[in-house]
Amino acid sequence: MAGLNKLIESDVFRAYATYATIVLLKMMLMSLVTAYYRLTRKVFANREDAAVHSKGGDVKKFLRTDEDVERVRRCHLNDLENIVPFIGVGLVYSLTNPDLFTALLHFRIFAGARILHSFAYLIPLPQPGRGLSWLIGYGVTISMAYSILSTTLYL
Amino acid sequence: MAGLNKLIESDVFRAYATYATIVLLKMMLMSLVTAYYRLTRKVFANREDAAVHSKGGDVKKFLRTDEDVERVRRCHLNDLENIVPFIGVGLVYSLTNPDLFTALLHFRIFAGARILHSFAYLIPLPQPGRGLSWLIGYGVTISMAYSILSTTLYL
Amino acid sequence: MAGLNKLIESDVFRAYATYATIVLLKMMLMSLVTAYYRLTRKVFANREDAAVHSKGGDVKKFLRTDEDVERVRRCHLNDLENIVPFIGVGLVYSLTNPDLFTALLHFRIFAGARILHSFAYLIPLPQPGRGLSWLIGYGVTISMAYSILSTTLYL
Repeated sequence: MAGLNKLIESDVFRAYATYATIVLLKMMLMSLVTAYYRLTRKVFANREDAAVHSKGGDVKKFLRTDEDVERVRRCHLNDLENIVPFIGVGLVYSLTNPDLFTALLHFRIFAGARILHSFAYLIPLPQPGRGLSWLIGYGVTISMAYSILSTTLYL
Repeated sequence: MAGLNKLIESDVFRAYATYATIVLLKMMLMSLVTAYYRLTRKVFANREDAAVHSKGGDVKKFLRTDEDVERVRRCHLNDLENIVPFIGVGLVYSLTNPDLFTALLHFRIFAGARILHSFAYLIPLPQPGRGLSWLIGYGVTISMAYSILSTTLYL
Repeated sequence: MAGLNKLIESDVFRAYATYATIVLLKMMLMSLVTAYYRLTRKVFANREDAAVHSKGGDVKKFLRTDEDVERVRRCHLNDLENIVPFIGVGLVYSLTNPDLFTALLHFRIFAGARILHSFAYLIPLPQPGRGLSWLIGYGVTISMAYSILSTTLYL
């Protein structure tokens, strides 16, 4: 298992492991925020969930959409759309032996931008706050993808 | 290519490979369930799909939403939201040299919980069936993330 | 860090790195297409986005859904549902020491099918264009999953 030990001994891979875990935890937090809004606003998508809260009354009244719930859901979906490429591209990038300083710069900026993006989406901040934080995260992933394709291309 | 051979010779990594493949296949199955409901209920989201089934008749009548189709789609999206973190966090976790027994326990509980979650969503079972199966899967990923951050942190 | 160097020296892993990056970039492109349609059609989901374009006028008029925007969003979600399994299954597959020619065949067909799928969805082409391109990508991932489970199973 020497190969395994060596992988996790690499500083770049440890940095990837840390930041990948952080951004995935941040994305998972969106599930809890959605649940919080659904429970406090009593807004549900499924009959069996509404049934718990109707206490024998009208179930349909709890089966509706709510702007705040939809906002969290859009924020969650935006995370999926942007964090999935980061996880995939970042993993490959961290295995192409990049410079540690450069790699850390990419990971830190991405994590910071996505955390800002969530705040900008959920507060919400006026534009271009959310747009810029999205663009910075997007640019970091593009930069890592460019680095992979320019060093590792095998078509 | 000694490094590659060694990675797949690790029992923990083989376990990850197996369970990651199983939960991703389970998630892919949701696409087939959606297609099945769309075709049997004749409920489509795209004009070109409805056109195949309208046979020259009114296309619009097939362009609607259906509660059963939406339910499968919510189940599929919930898979994406929960299985993506498992794949990313689980990969890194399996490379931090965890104890084989502990790792297998995490992977098996997660896979079981997500399979139960799909049944609870699609049958549907009354709450808290679905809620608990979701929470167990969520907790497994959090536990692996905690293990990564406590052994590998590199900020 | 010999382990790391060896991983990226493997032709199969380099091929995976290349095609994973390509399909993730293709998926990220959907964000730009969505933004393009939202800006040119002036169709927004968030008040703070609509506010930028209403210039003091009625914000609500820009808060609507548009069939073309929804189409791109469905295409993007379909990418997530299909490219996520490819990234996860493909990574594990490329670490099970598959034959280089076979692996390249899988990766190339998947990337080609998903690019065709996007064109078929966005033009849109009449069915079964989109259905077939979806099925081919789906089949490639199933084939890699079968290969993993038949060589690496560890339950």
